[in-house]
Amino acid sequence: MKNGMEIALQQARAAASRGEVPVGAVVLGPDGAVLAQNGNRVEEWHDPSAHAEMLVMREAVRLRRGQRLADCTLVVTLEPCPMCAAAITHFRVGRVLFGAYDPKGGGMEHGPRVPYRAESLHRPDVIGGVREREAADLLKTFFQTLRGAPLSADS
Amino acid sequence: MKNGMEIALQQARAAASRGEVPVGAVVLGPDGAVLAQNGNRVEEWHDPSAHAEMLVMREAVRLRRGQRLADCTLVVTLEPCPMCAAAITHFRVGRVLFGAYDPKGGGMEHGPRVPYRAESLHRPDVIGGVREREAADLLKTFFQTLRGAPLSADS
Repeated sequence: MKNGMEIALQQARAAASRGEVPVGAVVLGPDGAVLAQNGNRVEEWHDPSAHAEMLVMREAVRLRRGQRLADCTLVVTLEPCPMCAAAITHFRVGRVLFGAYDPKGGGMEHGPRVPYRAESLHRPDVIGGVREREAADLLKTFFQTLRGAPLSADS
Repeated sequence: MKNGMEIALQQARAAASRGEVPVGAVVLGPDGAVLAQNGNRVEEWHDPSAHAEMLVMREAVRLRRGQRLADCTLVVTLEPCPMCAAAITHFRVGRVLFGAYDPKGGGMEHGPRVPYRAESLHRPDVIGGVREREAADLLKTFFQTLRGAPLSADS
């Protein structure tokens, strides 16, 4: 599954180069093939819901003509927010691999912990912290540059 | 604001006639004008995230070229689910009016109660139960028909 996270990281870097918060995501089919890949498009599309996860889940299910993603893996560079965590249950994603943890904005392992709630209709397998440092460094560098702060030597 | 809920109910009825779960939504601008209206498109678009609220919020912000909805009202016939409740905070919706309460699937006044959480970056004004019975009856009739159960005289 390393390959999935490598593609997600590439999508995150491409998002940064478009001025978007650098988060990238991929949906892998049951055979490991890439069904959809994308990065954040919030600014470009004037759409506050255009998070990378939403875009790839929508594309994958559209390609499968409505078949949900119970046999698929969603790979994303950042812990999904509550909106995306709840969408993951609507899309019935079988497995989620994410990179950096997000204690402030995450909705999977932090905040409402959406898929683990008693009323949740679906609970994916979740693995967090995959190539965590690379994903977190991308975000750190992006926000430091945005604030115009000098980058430290190790960032 | 009665007008907004009337339009939302019409959108819900139109959704039912397309075989969608009957939920409709409207975004009203600061002057009360309709910015966007739509109903569920989950089946038609093969998109489990195509809830009425998501569609109208996305359309309204796109029309406003990225300006979020702090000065707008979202009117929707059913209590938003956790995905939509979290999206409402991303879109910075100023006010939410909803019809029927949804104890099982709601995310606003039930379940994770997303906008009231300490970590939420935005909290809209919320009024629930607006023309609640009409909105609830639409859903009840739809699911009874789907199950092929005979309708009772008052439904």
